[in-house]
Amino acid sequence: MKTKRLVILGSTGSIGRQTLDVVRELGDRIQVLGLTAGRNVSALEEQAREFKPRFVWSQNDEAQAALKSAAGARARWLSLEEQAAHPDTDIVLVGTVGRAGLSATLAALEAGKAVAIANKEVLVMAGALVTQAAARGGGQLLPVDSEHSAIWQCLWGEKRSAIARVLLTASGGAFRDYTPEQLAAVTPEQALRHPTWQMGRKITVDCASLLNKGFEVIETRWLFNVPFERIEIVMHRESIIHSLVEFVDGSVKAQLGEPDMRLPIRVALCYPQRAPSESGTPFDLARIGELHFAPPDFQRYPALSLALEAGRKGGTYPAALAAADEVAVAQFLAGHLRFIDIPNLLEDVLSKHAGAADTELEEVLAADSWARDFAEDWVRAKV
Amino acid sequence: MKTKRLVILGSTGSIGRQTLDVVRELGDRIQVLGLTAGRNVSALEEQAREFKPRFVWSQNDEAQAALKSAAGARARWLSLEEQAAHPDTDIVLVGTVGRAGLSATLAALEAGKAVAIANKEVLVMAGALVTQAAARGGGQLLPVDSEHSAIWQCLWGEKRSAIARVLLTASGGAFRDYTPEQLAAVTPEQALRHPTWQMGRKITVDCASLLNKGFEVIETRWLFNVPFERIEIVMHRESIIHSLVEFVDGSVKAQLGEPDMRLPIRVALCYPQRAPSESGTPFDLARIGELHFAPPDFQRYPALSLALEAGRKGGTYPAALAAADEVAVAQFLAGHLRFIDIPNLLEDVLSKHAGAADTELEEVLAADSWARDFAEDWVRAKV
Repeated sequence: MKTKRLVILGSTGSIGRQTLDVVRELGDRIQVLGLTAGRNVSALEEQAREFKPRFVWSQNDEAQAALKSAAGARARWLSLEEQAAHPDTDIVLVGTVGRAGLSATLAALEAGKAVAIANKEVLVMAGALVTQAAARGGGQLLPVDSEHSAIWQCLWGEKRSAIARVLLTASGGAFRDYTPEQLAAVTPEQALRHPTWQMGRKITVDCASLLNKGFEVIETRWLFNVPFERIEIVMHRESIIHSLVEFVDGSVKAQLGEPDMRLPIRVALCYPQRAPSESGTPFDLARIGELHFAPPDFQRYPALSLALEAGRKGGTYPAALAAADEVAVAQFLAGHLRFIDIPNLLEDVLSKHAGAADTELEEVLAADSWARDFAEDWVRAKV
Repeated sequence: MKTKRLVILGSTGSIGRQTLDVVRELGDRIQVLGLTAGRNVSALEEQAREFKPRFVWSQNDEAQAALKSAAGARARWLSLEEQAAHPDTDIVLVGTVGRAGLSATLAALEAGKAVAIANKEVLVMAGALVTQAAARGGGQLLPVDSEHSAIWQCLWGEKRSAIARVLLTASGGAFRDYTPEQLAAVTPEQALRHPTWQMGRKITVDCASLLNKGFEVIETRWLFNVPFERIEIVMHRESIIHSLVEFVDGSVKAQLGEPDMRLPIRVALCYPQRAPSESGTPFDLARIGELHFAPPDFQRYPALSLALEAGRKGGTYPAALAAADEVAVAQFLAGHLRFIDIPNLLEDVLSKHAGAADTELEEVLAADSWARDFAEDWVRAKV
């Protein structure tokens, strides 16, 4: 197998660090070509020292000299977009959170790169733009989210026209067994205790509200060109079946595994090969013993319905919802907003947003800015 | 899609009748070219009248005139082998039981046909010969058994070299919750009550002893060229996950569905297409609610260990075991043998058989005859 040259956007976050775990295991299948991070300079410096990338970048411009020196004599300071579209780049892993990875994702797809996408807001905000860029430039989107990786793997060797339904599984998040009274008083610490997955803070809170599952429905629509009415959600507490596809002949395929993000990362990095791995918990169905399934409770998870509504409205509505949610989650984690107020804020965003149907990047970014301001004001008025 | 011309071997049996159900639904995707049956002439005559096959055959030679007249003026009386290898045949469904379908399967594969194989004894008895015939003649084996269809579908778009393990699921059969005391006194009527599948009598009894699952391990070895040590069994009472494949990177894929043989038959007949179907119970995981898994209990199912032992020994041992089992099950169903004596008989067959390692068809058939005689004598001595 030819060595793939990899750029990681957001290398110090949860996905970025797990990607580097996978890269360590994959040996010379992958060469780390570039690393970018936000403000965690010390972690990035350590990564640069270990992987000696040719490109490095951080939001903290003052760290430039130290980071280049850690990466090696030839290292260059290139922005996310420059790294993503560089002629030497084979594959870009987008591990940023929120809108940070959007323009670099577009640049990579326009330049015909493989883009392993773990940043869900990129597809939620700008799914139409992203798929258009891929079609124009010949780039390929490779899902990294466990649910979308499952759907993707189930579709290998299948025709897209054979899809009857996609069944996204949902663990139910940290509060799945809480009473409404308990839910009214939950703390950020409680919200960050996901029952099955180890992930970043923002997404863990979005899992507790199931907004994340709504986002995943929107991503599914764009990644696999499946209409919303063919995408369903099934609650599955153990997070062992990562998602399922039903075909027109009635056959159903599923992808399974212990909950471990390194698996979908490995699948995306190695595609179309499968690379042997000895890491991770061995899969043992007999030990797992039982798997449970239930219909989603839309009353219990109002944020889920709001995400689906935004998805169906289309245009800039999902971007507005995602941006407002970033503010809402940050305010909740800072102790300024109750968990149960998050869907109330989001509902107001959707009803107040004057969405554009024909989305260009400027309109998406304008909707994003408007929704952030609206959400900040909303929280201030509440407090 | 071009109409496929289908020959059904064993059209009046359980698999044959379900195949005709599927053919009715598939419309002009499939044309019934030939039908063969054993002694159930009246059922075959009715099928011939409905489907007007160009070829017909029954074990009962005296029915020739009536059957040809039912099939239509141009109908010809052709043997299983002649129908299977006929130039106009595109696909052969082998729905016979026991060794009846063996030489026709070999003839079809030598002639380059697609062979949808539901007769497990053919692969158990003569897996090496069958795969050699396919390689020589360019024929393709399409599994119809639900477990092997599941494995096959999981492998679409995958490389065979990427298989780490195959996990065959087993319902546990009619006696899975019986105590040893109950098991000692079971009747044929009890053995024929399979908890999840509607199937023929012989296979339903083999499911109760789990000998059938051992046969499926042997079939898996031949159908997918997977060594025995990579094939495992997991008990799964609901028969919803039909089997799973683990790949070298740790990812696991499964095929699921309500237990209904018409699904794997449809998949095999339509391959490489998937044809829309509205029949069968809709798949609803939330309604199913729970799936259970457990390790197999080899003490409870001694016939399973014997089948695995025969598979590992190879050569003519599986043929001897399968032939003795045909006798044993018939004697059990006739009330001449206790259910718990079936594995005792099979154990003696394996220990007394002087197996040939390098199997030719004559040796396989000789082992089959020897084992039948041995089993008949064994039962007579017991009674």
